[in-house]
This record gives sequence, structure tokens and C-alpha cells, in this order.
Amino acid sequence: MSHYVGKTGIVVRNIPRADADAINELGGYGVATVHEAQGRKGLLDPAIRPIQQDHGISGSAVTALVAPGDNWMFHVAVEQCQPGDILVVATSSPCTDGYFGDLLATSLQARGVRGLVVDAGVRDTRTLREMGFAVWSRAVYAQGTVKETLGSVNIPVVCAGQLVNPGDVIVADDDGVVVVRRTDVTMALEASRKRAEGEEQKRVRLENGELGLDIYNMRPRLAEKGLKYFDNLDELEG
Amino acid sequence: MSHYVGKTGIVVRNIPRADADAINELGGYGVATVHEAQGRKGLLDPAIRPIQQDHGISGSAVTALVAPGDNWMFHVAVEQCQPGDILVVATSSPCTDGYFGDLLATSLQARGVRGLVVDAGVRDTRTLREMGFAVWSRAVYAQGTVKETLGSVNIPVVCAGQLVNPGDVIVADDDGVVVVRRTDVTMALEASRKRAEGEEQKRVRLENGELGLDIYNMRPRLAEKGLKYFDNLDELEG
Amino acid sequence: MSHYVGKTGIVVRNIPRADADAINELGGYGVATVHEAQGRKGLLDPAIRPIQQDHGISGSAVTALVAPGDNWMFHVAVEQCQPGDILVVATSSPCTDGYFGDLLATSLQARGVRGLVVDAGVRDTRTLREMGFAVWSRAVYAQGTVKETLGSVNIPVVCAGQLVNPGDVIVADDDGVVVVRRTDVTMALEASRKRAEGEEQKRVRLENGELGLDIYNMRPRLAEKGLKYFDNLDELEG
Amino acid sequence: MSHYVGKTGIVVRNIPRADADAINELGGYGVATVHEAQGRKGLLDPAIRPIQQDHGISGSAVTALVAPGDNWMFHVAVEQCQPGDILVVATSSPCTDGYFGDLLATSLQARGVRGLVVDAGVRDTRTLREMGFAVWSRAVYAQGTVKETLGSVNIPVVCAGQLVNPGDVIVADDDGVVVVRRTDVTMALEASRKRAEGEEQKRVRLENGELGLDIYNMRPRLAEKGLKYFDNLDELEG
Amino acid sequence: MSHYVGKTGIVVRNIPRADADAINELGGYGVATVHEAQGRKGLLDPAIRPIQQDHGISGSAVTALVAPGDNWMFHVAVEQCQPGDILVVATSSPCTDGYFGDLLATSLQARGVRGLVVDAGVRDTRTLREMGFAVWSRAVYAQGTVKETLGSVNIPVVCAGQLVNPGDVIVADDDGVVVVRRTDVTMALEASRKRAEGEEQKRVRLENGELGLDIYNMRPRLAEKGLKYFDNLDELEG
Amino acid sequence: MSHYVGKTGIVVRNIPRADADAINELGGYGVATVHEAQGRKGLLDPAIRPIQQDHGISGSAVTALVAPGDNWMFHVAVEQCQPGDILVVATSSPCTDGYFGDLLATSLQARGVRGLVVDAGVRDTRTLREMGFAVWSRAVYAQGTVKETLGSVNIPVVCAGQLVNPGDVIVADDDGVVVVRRTDVTMALEASRKRAEGEEQKRVRLENGELGLDIYNMRPRLAEKGLKYFDNLDELEG
Repeated sequence: MSHYVGKTGIVVRNIPRADADAINELGGYGVATVHEAQGRKGLLDPAIRPIQQDHGISGSAVTALVAPGDNWMFHVAVEQCQPGDILVVATSSPCTDGYFGDLLATSLQARGVRGLVVDAGVRDTRTLREMGFAVWSRAVYAQGTVKETLGSVNIPVVCAGQLVNPGDVIVADDDGVVVVRRTDVTMALEASRKRAEGEEQKRVRLENGELGLDIYNMRPRLAEKGLKYFDNLDELEG
Repeated sequence: MSHYVGKTGIVVRNIPRADADAINELGGYGVATVHEAQGRKGLLDPAIRPIQQDHGISGSAVTALVAPGDNWMFHVAVEQCQPGDILVVATSSPCTDGYFGDLLATSLQARGVRGLVVDAGVRDTRTLREMGFAVWSRAVYAQGTVKETLGSVNIPVVCAGQLVNPGDVIVADDDGVVVVRRTDVTMALEASRKRAEGEEQKRVRLENGELGLDIYNMRPRLAEKGLKYFDNLDELEG
Repeated sequence: MSHYVGKTGIVVRNIPRADADAINELGGYGVATVHEAQGRKGLLDPAIRPIQQDHGISGSAVTALVAPGDNWMFHVAVEQCQPGDILVVATSSPCTDGYFGDLLATSLQARGVRGLVVDAGVRDTRTLREMGFAVWSRAVYAQGTVKETLGSVNIPVVCAGQLVNPGDVIVADDDGVVVVRRTDVTMALEASRKRAEGEEQKRVRLENGELGLDIYNMRPRLAEKGLKYFDNLDELEG
Repeated sequence: MSHYVGKTGIVVRNIPRADADAINELGGYGVATVHEAQGRKGLLDPAIRPIQQDHGISGSAVTALVAPGDNWMFHVAVEQCQPGDILVVATSSPCTDGYFGDLLATSLQARGVRGLVVDAGVRDTRTLREMGFAVWSRAVYAQGTVKETLGSVNIPVVCAGQLVNPGDVIVADDDGVVVVRRTDVTMALEASRKRAEGEEQKRVRLENGELGLDIYNMRPRLAEKGLKYFDNLDELEG
Repeated sequence: MSHYVGKTGIVVRNIPRADADAINELGGYGVATVHEAQGRKGLLDPAIRPIQQDHGISGSAVTALVAPGDNWMFHVAVEQCQPGDILVVATSSPCTDGYFGDLLATSLQARGVRGLVVDAGVRDTRTLREMGFAVWSRAVYAQGTVKETLGSVNIPVVCAGQLVNPGDVIVADDDGVVVVRRTDVTMALEASRKRAEGEEQKRVRLENGELGLDIYNMRPRLAEKGLKYFDNLDELEG
Repeated sequence: MSHYVGKTGIVVRNIPRADADAINELGGYGVATVHEAQGRKGLLDPAIRPIQQDHGISGSAVTALVAPGDNWMFHVAVEQCQPGDILVVATSSPCTDGYFGDLLATSLQARGVRGLVVDAGVRDTRTLREMGFAVWSRAVYAQGTVKETLGSVNIPVVCAGQLVNPGDVIVADDDGVVVVRRTDVTMALEASRKRAEGEEQKRVRLENGELGLDIYNMRPRLAEKGLKYFDNLDELEG
């Protein structure tokens, strides 16, 4: 499939999607946990930021590749979306134009789409927040776009430094966006559960004043690496 | 007039302003709509961001050109401001210093000024939000400035990539800032009204599940350009 | 002491701290005032931004130097923190990884630490806000870190362009972060008080419509420098 | 294969490579031509710049994924390189450290490797130029790296925004870097030949003063889109 | 005229140009001198960099406004160029695509055009250097562009932060690019001559070891501002 | 001494300098080697780049702190320079103005100064290269500066992220700039010698085709960390 990265003029109608319950549960764990759970991979570039605060979503990726300054393929992509999807849009070269605003959001929301991740600009951000339509983008910019050049929908794309296949699972929150391969969802889910449990136990111990140095037994290895403690600055200087 | 871009040592006392009702109505349509309505021009660089959220203003530009790290001309500019104005400040070379804080905002607010657009830094941002004084800036930075070098007030300036003449209309909201030539206000207003109406009709249809592909009759032209649909990935690969 | 900048493998246990009341009072004046009061120095790079809004803190700096992508020293640093401290972390080379999340914040909060200033990335930002743990960072990024390479704790570090000694006072709010040398605290405090009083008086006059031009007696010097007033654009052009 | 993007701990010893003559011929056409010939795709981010001027290479990609600030996998990758290869290195999170210098270049040069493309920093750049070892990188920075964390060699990587599979063909010159899928080489080669011929004919006509407007018959479509000519500024204003 | 900034669909055929000898002499003084001579204005953003080294030009600006990722107007602009011109291109929104390569350069060179200043990307940079066609650009990037959207030729444009009118004089060298209003050429020329003479005299004195402190009689004013000299660090600390 | 970081209005006349032979020998090893030899510290931010290629220097730091857009202190600093010095200039807030050109370079060259490191912009770069005066800067920009605000000379400064004391040793080449504490010179020199010898031996072995994997005996530890080799992609997938 990766042979199709960057190809234009293609729309794929039916894509595989992961189990809806699994997707939702992954969303509950959040980006940082899922990223760790699947072996520290899949994070989009930190330049992709949410336009809203304290909100997280998860869903199946419907992918689109668009030309710079041209949002034609957004309209093509809308038709391929189903409830629970997240639209993931890459550009064929860097562009911060405002590809997406409240009308397209209305259309996606009408189809049950949960949000947009786009390596470009968006606009109408106040209205998008009022609508409750979640967006992660590289820029906020009102610059309009044209509808002249074909891209593709539902081929693999490289979005903000990560390969995203149609049907991969997207988790997005205040920390950014992570992609989970559709075939890794079960693994990522189990690892996330385990990690969340472990974190909960550690949190209680840390709240009670125990130190990570002791919980993780770091002291011997720190000493072995040569860490030296000094009582005060005078001892260090002396 | 554009002959004066970049000249220092000049203050112009009386500038033409557009009709107050027209300015206010333009503000109601917001940046994205006004930008589209006037033919997709006049947007300031997307690096200019608001310090507050979900707030929009419009007003007549009082312009100022300031030296890097020198906010002397802000004080000169305050005197030239009237109720309903927006102060628009350009620097003669890039600078992120904090030119503007709560005292200058107090002075501008006392004169009825609606906000500040500055291609530099500002400070006291929490107080500015509490005061309800709206600001769009390139940076937030507490670095102080001096008062040694002349600039100008109410000459044309290039602010964040756009030419702004004194008396031009500024519309600013969460999407950024757009400048409308004073002589284009009527045109921009009529086009904005028309555009807003059209958008409202489309919004209803999109909410009802109609597709942009159909509303805008995009399918024939997409096909003509060569867009191909595939039922699934296997068909694409096959 | 500055001889130790950049050295690794060192932890200093006891550091001098400024008077707690003085630290708290400095925090009340905020970054812009304190920066001005101490002679316009000590501001960290404006790229360091808060993850929360409308919140300010002050405290004694516990410093840490960490390797890129390696948060081991955070755990070492926690043990050296006391109530009222702020952890200040520099990296030995630029890195935006998410060094810090809710577990480390829980541990710091349990020790009474007031916040974190880090020239790198953080994660779990929504949870950090919910916990009320204040953070200033260069980036928000979920990318995990390892625990393999030693850094140092409580040596002088250069964080976001400023030298920070352990025990220096940190003031941080929406405008950014400023460091006050421990030995300058009394001077900074007195100057901040005086400045705050002066600003309050000016604020009242400005609210009443007086101009900075008159309050600061700027007109003669502006004229001397050659500032020219024109009644209108025609006069300027003529 | 794309399932393996981002996985660590993997080395693949034998990878398919394209025909050597085809690779060399592609290199002769250069980045701009090959990019156009294969349908305008495959360009790495323009932030990847050569450390030398007026030099171009092509070769088979040996890929590596490395941790931030950790160049251990470079040594693992060297062993997998053959004459005619280009080493392509991605990092698991953004990092500008100097992963690569003259010793690693000596080792690669001894194996007949033609160059390095790395989404990070390099050092010893003067020596690299003297050695004639070609490098494209995101940064020049002397910052050293450690050898603690595993990455992978010869799995698909996303390098500077493009998916690169082991065995894909890399063309790099002053314009940047483009990747050609191994399975697209024949297509890209034929299209490059055709394009180069066409360009040569056009160059002669343009040198003789013919206009692109006429050669490409652009005038009717420009008129149809509404382009208006004015004899001079007065006519425009009038 | 500035009313036309940002308008599309316009070509102006005949533009006023400054005296050729004056333009050439200005070029000889270089960017830094001309910028100072005309009162420190007119400098384009420092992000605009030459693709060649140790080369300077001057000429009359033929201006073009282009859409993002669309180089159609370059072809329209070529026809409006005369010997001695410099093509100055602005984009209607930020874009780093490679709008310009060796074929367009061949066409411009055939018409006697001296160079290109473009607030976007270029490609074929090695060939451009071999041709001796001078270019200043924001980026080097091979990304191709389309020909779908109208811009304008020979209207005022804002290029890299400066207003450029058709017929204004451009001076470009290793220090960047400066624009001189056509009506300011005589003034700028005389001031440049005077400045160059003054600099030559100062250079001789400085080469002979005289200090700027004495040549410019800075010591009294430095003392008055409060500059204090200390014999050594001990005296400072003491 | 670090108490004086950021203070203005101070000039220190006599500073300690390291042994001239030691400084020169350090310069011969270059930035990457010296940085490693002294324990991977002291590197200035990679944004500081040379204006010339394939040239390296070393010398004693004369330091200056300057206001944004104000180069007055350069003239004060010249007088404090001796043969073999390098002028190191920090700004009190970020600024890319062209503080330094050929006249100041003439003056420094007349005093035997070897070069300039400045966290700001420079101009006259072509002339500087012709003069053979070496410069490392953050930007090239012709923007002029004023002479209104005091800074300091020969106090400790933070330049591009590193603390530099007057009399510290600077090594600068194509890889960037590193600072060596004056009191660390002997240590750094011995470690550089040892490192250079070790590298020379390794270079010979690598040229002969030996692998770093074997020279550094990396294989056992890689295996222990879990690195897995696969014969080919099929085996990996299988």
C-alpha cells in the first residue's frame, strides 16, 4: 500500500476500520499513554496543536492528500466518512492556508465525524469551538483556498511526519496526536490498560511522598554511572 | 501616500475614517468572511495571534511605525486615537520586545480605542485580558523598551506583510487580522452580506446531510480532471 | 560557581534560599514589573510559555541539567526540592521531548513544589492543569524519554538564555519567566514596590484621560529630535 | 512493510536494490526533474540542506531509525551498506545533535557509500567536504551523541516528511532530496528522459527569445480566466 | 496605486523606470550603504537569501503577485520585462514551493533581466549559478507548481515585508535586498556617494589604529549616560 | 562574577587570558574535538553560523552586552581588545539587526582581533570575507543600529545559550562555536590531544574497512539490549 504515498487522483471507498469499542477505550487513555504503550512511536510533529483546550478524541482515520492552497479533496473526503471517523489531511508541500472552516465542519459533523487533524491551517476557529468540532492543525489562518488540483482520499499519507494508513486509529488530545496501526490496536489497548494501572499505583505512592528514586530503584545505577552528591556548594568548590 | 512607507519623524493628526456603522457591521462578519468577500486579500501574517480567545473587533486603523526595542511612538500615537479606532503598529526591523502593557492599554481604553494589532511583543497579558482590552501580537514577552528613536504616526505602514493606511478598516478575531481599504468598505460590506447569506443557506443543507460535492456540483469536473474511485484497497492494488 | 555550568554527574544537596516572604511578595508584582525593577535583565526566552492561563507563581530555583531525550535527572531533582521551590530544567542540547508528565508533577506537588520551568517539552498537560500544577515549557509533546545519561542537580544552568543559580528566585506568569539573583532579592523587592506604586498613580491619571506625552513630559524632547506634526495627509503631501 | 515504521530493535540484512545503471542515470537528471517526472511526489522537507555546493548523487537507500541524541544505530547501519548506497537516517523525535562526523564518513566511504541524508545534525563539515563525502542534513551542530538506545536498520522510515523504504532510490543535489520507490524506477527514468528532452528543446526556444506564454499557448486560457492588460498605471487608475 | 495591493487579474504593460546610470551606480554602493543613505528603510526580511555568493545587482522592479503553489504569472511577467529589470515576486499567502527554475531563468536572461527576488522557493539552483542568473529567495525547494490561478503583474506588492512598486529600484547583494522608491533615487544616490566617501576616510583612520570612540567623539556622551570603567574584575567585585 | 550577567554600564579594562600557545593549539583541534574533549559542554546554539566557509579560529573572549538595535558598545569593546582576541557579543533581547560591518571589522583587524561571534545580525558580509575577517552570527541583515543605550564590556554574558566569561577561550569553525573556561584550558588541551590521537588511529582502521561495531566491541551490548537481525524482509514479515 505504501507504494501509493503521494499519488494523486485516487479515492478508495471502503476501508477497514478497527473495533469501535477498542477505539473508544484507547481514546480514554490519551495520547501520552497510548504512545508509550505501543513502544513510543506514532506521534505527529508537535507543531500540530489543538484549537480547543481540555478535550480528547479517538477514531478511525479517513485520509486525504491535498495540494498547497487547494481544499477540493476535503469535499471528496467528506463523502467517505462514517460516524466515529477522524479526517486526517496531509499536504503535498508545506502550506498554512485556511483549508477548513465551519461549513466543512458542519458537513463532517452531520456525518458523525469526531474531528480533523490537518498539517495546514484552519479558520472559523471560534465557531468550530462553539460547534464542539475538534481540530488539530499546524496553523490558524483565514487565507482561502481554491479547488483546481486533484489529491487523493484514503491512500496512505505522511501527515506531520507520521505515516497514516486509512483505517489506522487516531488518538488526539491536548498533548498532540498519535497514530496506532489498525493491526496494533489490540496490542496497544492491552499495553495501555496495563500502563494505566501501573501509573495509578505509582501515583498513590508518589502522592504519599515516596520518591521515584526509590520506587524505580534508581539509586544503585545512578551511583554506578558516577553520580556524586555534595552537601553544599562549598564542598563542591573545595 | 505609499511614498511615506518607512519614513520617520512624521505625525499626521487628522485621517479619514470609514462610516462607523459599516465598520461595525464588517466586524460582525469576522475575518474569514471579510477576507473572502474582498477577494482574498489583506490578511496579516498568521504569526500575529490574539492574546484572548473568542473575541472579535473592528475599527479604523491609527498606524504607527516604531524602532526595534523602542516604544516612544506608542505615546505619540495615543493622542491621535479616537473612539472606535484600532492601533496598528509596525516595527522598522523584526523585534519581539514587550512594547505594550497595561498602562498604555489604560490610556487607549480611556480614549475609546478598541484594540491593538502589533507586529512585536506585548506584556501584562493577564491584566490586559482582565481589562477587556483586545490585543493581537507576534509575541508575548516582558522585555522592556526605551524611548530614544523617532518613528511615525499615521503614515502607511507594512504590518505583518500587509500595507495598512491610516483610516483603513481592521477586522480582527480568533482567525487573525484582515485590513480593508477605506475605499473598499462598501464593496466589502455588500460582498460580506451576500457571502454570509449564502453560507447560511449552505449550512442548513450541510446540516441535513447534503454533500458539498453535490451542492457545488463538483463531480463532473473531478471526473474530467481524472479522479478515479476504487471500491477498496484490493481493487486499487489489483 | 559558574565554572560548573554544563558539568554532569553532580548533585548539591543544600542550597541557599532567599527569604520566603520576599519571594512571595515578588511573585505578587509579576514578571514585567520585577524585570523592570531589577534593571531589565533576567528574562527567559519568550519561547518558554505557560501551559495554563492567568496564573503566576514565585519560588526558589532548584536547578537541573538533563541530556536530550533523557529525564533521569528529574527524579534526582525531586528529592532536593522543598516546599516553595520551583524546578528549573535546562537541556545540554535543544530537545522538545516530553520530559515531564503527571506522575512527576504528583511527586513534586507532594513535596510542596510550586511549578516547573523547563527548556524542553512536557506532556499530560490537561491533567497538569486539573492538578493545578503550574508549568512553563518550550513545547507540548508526548514523546517519551529514557533514563540512561547523567546530568546534574543544583549547579548553575543556562535555561532558555539565562543563567540560573540554585537558590535564585524565579517569578513566572502569563508574560513568561524572570530570574532574580538571590543576592538581588531585597533590591528587586524595593524597586518593585516603588515601581508598582508609581504605576498605580499613573494608571489613575491615564484612566482620567491624561496622556503619557504630558505625564512623562515627552513633547519637548520629541520636538528636539525632529518630530513634525501635519494637520492631514494633504499637508504632508503638499 | 509499513507496519514496521517506528519499530525499534530490528536489522534487516538483505534488501532489494534497483538496477545500478538506472540509479546512476536518474542521478544525472537531478532532483527537480525526477520529482516532476514521477508526478511531483517524494520530496523531503526543504529544511534538509546540503553541506556542500554544486554536487549531486543518487543511490539505494539503506535506512536507519535512531533515538534523539543517540547515534548507536549508525554503526549498525554501516555494516549493511554496499557500494552505491546512500544512508538515510530518521530520528524518532526531532533532534539537531551532531550524530555524524568524519570517522563515520570514513567508514562509509571505505564501503563505497555515496552519501548521507539525515533528519538531524552533523559535524566535522569542513573535513567531510575535504573528503568529498556528500551530506544532506537538517543542521550543522557539534553536539555529541550517546550509544544507549536501540533503533532499527532497513525498515521503512519517515525521513523529513517522506516515507523511505530500504532499497528505494535517493536522488540528492543542491535542490534537496527526492525518494523514488524502487518499483517506480523504470517509470521515473523514462519520464525523466522525456522531460529532459522536452526541456532542452524549450530552452533553445526561450534562449532565442520566444515566450513561455506562446510556447505553452497560455494566452487564451489567461484571457478566459479574466486577465486584463492595461497600457499603464494611469489607464489602471482611470 | 496602493489601492491595488493584493488585487488579481491585472497586468500593466508600461511602467516608469529610473535613470539607468543612477540604478547602476546605486548597485555599486551595495545594500547596506543604500539602506543607510535613504534613512534606514526599504530592507526586505532577512529570510530572503541569495543562492550565490559575492555577487550584487541593481535594477528596475517588475512586480508580480502569485497564488500559493502557482507560477502562472511568472510567464506573464516575463513578457513585461526589459533589459536591466529585476523580477520581484510576492505570494498571496506563505509558500516555499519551487516556483522558478532554469527554464524561466533562460527566458528572463534572454530578455536582459538581471535577477529575481522571490518571497518563495526556487529550484535548479546549481544550474542557475552556472548560468550566472542571480536569485534571492526564501527557500530552495524542488516542489513543482501549477498554472491555474490568476495573480497580477506590475501592481504594487508587499514582498518580504516591504512595499515594492513597479519601477522602484532594487539593490541586492550578499547582505539581502533593499527597495528604493523611484522618486527617491536621486536623493538616495547623493546620500550614498556622501556616505561612501565618509566611510572611506574613516576606514583609513581605523586601519591606522584610531578608535571609533575618538573619531565619533563618543566618550563624553558615554560618561554622561553613566558608563563606568573598572581596572579589573577585582575592582568590580570589590 | 556571574552576579554581573545582564548588568549594564560596566567596562572592565584588564581581563585574564589563557596561554597563547594553548589557545592556538586548541584552535587546531576544532570545535567538535574540543567540545568532546571537555565533556560535551560549551557549544553555542546551532543557529550561530559562519559567514565564511572552511575557516577556523581560536582566541580569548572579550565580551560585550548590547541593547536590541544598538551597537554603541561595539565601539567601547574595540578599545579593550588585544591581538589574539575574539569579540563575543550578546544582546539583552533577541535582535537580528546588522550590528557589525566592514568599518568595525577594520578597527578590530587593526588591533589584531581574530574574529567576531555575535548573537545578532551582521552586514557587509562580502567585504568581510574579502578582508579575511571571520564572523559567526545569527543572521545576515543590513538593518542599521543606533547608539543610544548602554550595555557592558567584559562582564560574563549568556551568548546563544552559553555563559561566556571575559578571558574564556573561544574555538570557532564550520561546525559552530564552543567556549572553554579559561581555567579548563589545560584539561581541554590534554583531552583534545588524546582524542585526536585516538581518532587518527581509528580513522586508519576504518579506512581499511574495519567496522566501528568491532573496533568499539558493540555487538555484545547490542544483542543484550535486544537487537535482532533478519536475513531479509520476508523473514521479518514471516
